[in-house]
Amino acid sequence: MKNATKIKISVFIAISLDGFIAREDGDVSWLHEGVELGEGEDAGFGVFFNAIDVLVMGRGSFEKVLEFDPWPYGAKPVIVLSKSLTEVPDKLRDTVRIDASTPQKLVEKLSQEGYKHIYLDGGKVIQSFLREGLVDEMTLTTIPVLIGNGIPLFGEIEKDIKLKLLESRSWENSFVQSKYQVMK
Amino acid sequence: MKNATKIKISVFIAISLDGFIAREDGDVSWLHEGVELGEGEDAGFGVFFNAIDVLVMGRGSFEKVLEFDPWPYGAKPVIVLSKSLTEVPDKLRDTVRIDASTPQKLVEKLSQEGYKHIYLDGGKVIQSFLREGLVDEMTLTTIPVLIGNGIPLFGEIEKDIKLKLLESRSWENSFVQSKYQVMK
Repeated sequence: MKNATKIKISVFIAISLDGFIAREDGDVSWLHEGVELGEGEDAGFGVFFNAIDVLVMGRGSFEKVLEFDPWPYGAKPVIVLSKSLTEVPDKLRDTVRIDASTPQKLVEKLSQEGYKHIYLDGGKVIQSFLREGLVDEMTLTTIPVLIGNGIPLFGEIEKDIKLKLLESRSWENSFVQSKYQVMK
Repeated sequence: MKNATKIKISVFIAISLDGFIAREDGDVSWLHEGVELGEGEDAGFGVFFNAIDVLVMGRGSFEKVLEFDPWPYGAKPVIVLSKSLTEVPDKLRDTVRIDASTPQKLVEKLSQEGYKHIYLDGGKVIQSFLREGLVDEMTLTTIPVLIGNGIPLFGEIEKDIKLKLLESRSWENSFVQSKYQVMK
């Protein structure tokens, strides 16, 4: 067994000002109902996506993303954390795999496979990794809308988690993006 | 009866990154557990406080503030919105009064009394004013900590509330402050 390299785990996600990543039914159309970012502006997502080498998401996020055409993650490897899913659609067999490991076990496994930087997506998955102290950085883009209820980004934790602001910026369309390091 | 002047209603509040204004028991010590702002820096609170001419808060906030010595609001008039409170401590009789009006009625009353700018404080009061479309501006200072649960700033609403970012700034100690106009 190789020594595991230290793998970096990052979150890059948009939230409503009241802290939701989607409505109860998964709807995220409210992300696009305000003024859009300028032409060619992606709030740093392209640079972030190029820097990561594997995505980890939950079943909920995966099923939502399956509705998109084309599949948005190209050839980037995707791990779907799920104990209930067993099948990946044929066209995604080369890049998507299902894994039922705990967060800690999955991180060890991906480290041993040589991955360097995980992009973590989906509320439940992010919450479980945060609870286990596995998240290194979070880039949160706050959308200027209150939606009242939905799927929250954050959840209960056993003890406070402190963060350090690495960068904060805003756009003319009222998006505010803050990048935090999770203190350990 | 005088014509009511248009009164401005502002929120100026600190929240944890997961959207709480206090722990369940009202504790806000986590506000001060990270790195403090620099000497003499108050994140704009002094300028804000000088610009408002009346505070409106709920019973919970009032009872929390009563624990402070000295009373932090000086001679500034304070309205405590409560249906259950009847008595104000003797030393505060000149500046604090209790009112059981609805938000709309209270705003009309304060307008007619000549007030120009309300500082709205406390989770339930802010939520009820937001639901009735009565909030004009919100300055939110995000503290770099997740506390997991507590008293949330925002709550359920009947329909989405859109906002416009007026200003966003951050400090070396990782506070991020965003000032929003509530769109109507």
